Amino acid sequence: MKIHNFSAGPCILPQEVFDKMAEAVLNFNNSGSSIMEISHRRADAQEVIDNAIQLVKDLMNVPDTHEVIFTQGGASLQFVMVPFNLMKLNGGKAAYTETGAWAKNAIKEAKRMGEVNVLASSADKNFNYIPKGFSIPSDVDYFHCTSNNTIFGTQMKSFPNSPVPLVCDMSSDIMSKPVDVSKFDVIYAGAQKNMGPAGSVVTIVKKDILGKTGRDIPNYLNYETHIAKGSAFNTWPVLAVYGVMLNLQWLKNLGGVPEIAKRNVAKAELMYGEIDRNGMFTGTAEKEDRSEMNATFVLKDESLKAEFDKMWKEAGISSLNGHRDVGGYRASMYNALPIESVQVLVDIMKEFETKFG
Amino acid sequence: MKIHNFSAGPCILPQEVFDKMAEAVLNFNNSGSSIMEISHRRADAQEVIDNAIQLVKDLMNVPDTHEVIFTQGGASLQFVMVPFNLMKLNGGKAAYTETGAWAKNAIKEAKRMGEVNVLASSADKNFNYIPKGFSIPSDVDYFHCTSNNTIFGTQMKSFPNSPVPLVCDMSSDIMSKPVDVSKFDVIYAGAQKNMGPAGSVVTIVKKDILGKTGRDIPNYLNYETHIAKGSAFNTWPVLAVYGVMLNLQWLKNLGGVPEIAKRNVAKAELMYGEIDRNGMFTGTAEKEDRSEMNATFVLKDESLKAEFDKMWKEAGISSLNGHRDVGGYRASMYNALPIESVQVLVDIMKEFETKFG
Repeated sequence: MKIHNFSAGPCILPQEVFDKMAEAVLNFNNSGSSIMEISHRRADAQEVIDNAIQLVKDLMNVPDTHEVIFTQGGASLQFVMVPFNLMKLNGGKAAYTETGAWAKNAIKEAKRMGEVNVLASSADKNFNYIPKGFSIPSDVDYFHCTSNNTIFGTQMKSFPNSPVPLVCDMSSDIMSKPVDVSKFDVIYAGAQKNMGPAGSVVTIVKKDILGKTGRDIPNYLNYETHIAKGSAFNTWPVLAVYGVMLNLQWLKNLGGVPEIAKRNVAKAELMYGEIDRNGMFTGTAEKEDRSEMNATFVLKDESLKAEFDKMWKEAGISSLNGHRDVGGYRASMYNALPIESVQVLVDIMKEFETKFG
Repeated sequence: MKIHNFSAGPCILPQEVFDKMAEAVLNFNNSGSSIMEISHRRADAQEVIDNAIQLVKDLMNVPDTHEVIFTQGGASLQFVMVPFNLMKLNGGKAAYTETGAWAKNAIKEAKRMGEVNVLASSADKNFNYIPKGFSIPSDVDYFHCTSNNTIFGTQMKSFPNSPVPLVCDMSSDIMSKPVDVSKFDVIYAGAQKNMGPAGSVVTIVKKDILGKTGRDIPNYLNYETHIAKGSAFNTWPVLAVYGVMLNLQWLKNLGGVPEIAKRNVAKAELMYGEIDRNGMFTGTAEKEDRSEMNATFVLKDESLKAEFDKMWKEAGISSLNGHRDVGGYRASMYNALPIESVQVLVDIMKEFETKFG
């Protein structure tokens, strides 16, 4: 049976990525060696990371003022690297918005290193909306926001004009729609949603903001280290980056970010249309802040949970359960999820309404 | 043609690991999903990391006083995490030995955070020996050493009795021979030599030494975070850890560390026997400190380089070039390299002597 994979991440990737990865694990580029056993310094390995970096630049129209690096440790290590690289040693201050679990963790790390001004929070309504109307002070070292909140199903639809460096955690919606990279000073994203398998992080950083904090930054935590070494400061995660390269090639071949953005809008409209139409369900996020990546919804009548769960599982749908902080259901519709899978879910929701409504 | 892979890392792994990885990339455990697309929170993914941790414990006889964690960022991030976790905030001091390029990098990171006493160095002879006869002061927070120096082909044959916590970077010889883990407070190793593909790091840490520095440690850099979360504090690198699990299963099935140690001794004896017998070559490391993992040697007559290089390349040998800091050749003979590959190299060296000697 075909599996419809709504996992919140690591998540569905295109079948051609699986096919090409399996081939490379056995025989990389017809070299007779597995991609798992070659030195990261070999010319054909170097091509992998160079291609992956170039694909990020091409797909996101990264200007020459910025550089793209691959590191490890997930967004969680970026929460640490951002203040190390941008927050002044003496009198360091930063502004954050608190829009969910990951934003909270980012704030926690910054607070260890300086003063943090939380400009706005949606904690009062379990993070079901994106706060607006705040102003960013001009006396902080940077402003940090989270573009998409997987757990709560909210997404920023626009970004503020910031008087200070603008930093954004785009882990769960990078490359889902066009963004103007020139507006940002740092964009980072764990690869395991729209970019590839778990095990690497992409950071896009404006070069001229670095080296100004007065901090003696550990080498691995210093963006300048990775820029200077072309992301090969130490052994990079070859399998993970190869997976990203394959996935970004797939995205480029199908028309890049503008094309995938159209598909993502169509999927989200289909999904939210059904949530709003169907009397059995309620969406949990404020409509204007709904995420195109993660649709969160609950049953109006929780006593029907066993029946609904049985129906979607029998249809081959997997990983639809909501996060424990929200409950209910979460349909994650990352780039590689075909609209056909959303249609299967919508059909099940309609059938559920017919049977139990 | 069969490839004899002498790469210094990432390096050769068993064919059955490649076969099983390729299968899992297409269909993980007959679940119908690729291992690249499943949530790290799924029960069958949880089993992967739990098994990998348990295999490290079993293979190395890790006592209950210690815990095993998987993180990312390579040994280079461990160079940072060790002082964060073990060096006191006020008046912190540590002792290191300087035995090669990686030891130098470890020292550099520790120096950012406190006083570092370099007890002994082999820099005077381009790191071609392991310093001995130094004594470890009892007023430092820990002593750090590097068990095997890949670039220079040297290896510690015994470990000192340390009056302070003993920390060892075993990246390039972990699980190659038995070690008494109970003697160590921290052992760490990038996976990409004897344990699996690049992309994860194993740390074995004695639990009761943690939490005593007075430092406010960033979450990702805190060993206690990863211990508390069973290495799932954030999304762990699923492909990389699955590769480690498969490789450690292979090692366990063939008889574990005692069995592989016998094979490694046999390979090293064959290799060094030929280096010493053959009049065309000179080993670069002091005999008593020679590494069983990486044999470094040079031509006595450099003008014959093109001829020798042609011969080994034609025999299917790959990645035999020495590191630029030493020159010549480096035969890396990690756990998965069969003795047959060493024999092919030895035969070529003999043939080279016959033709040009």
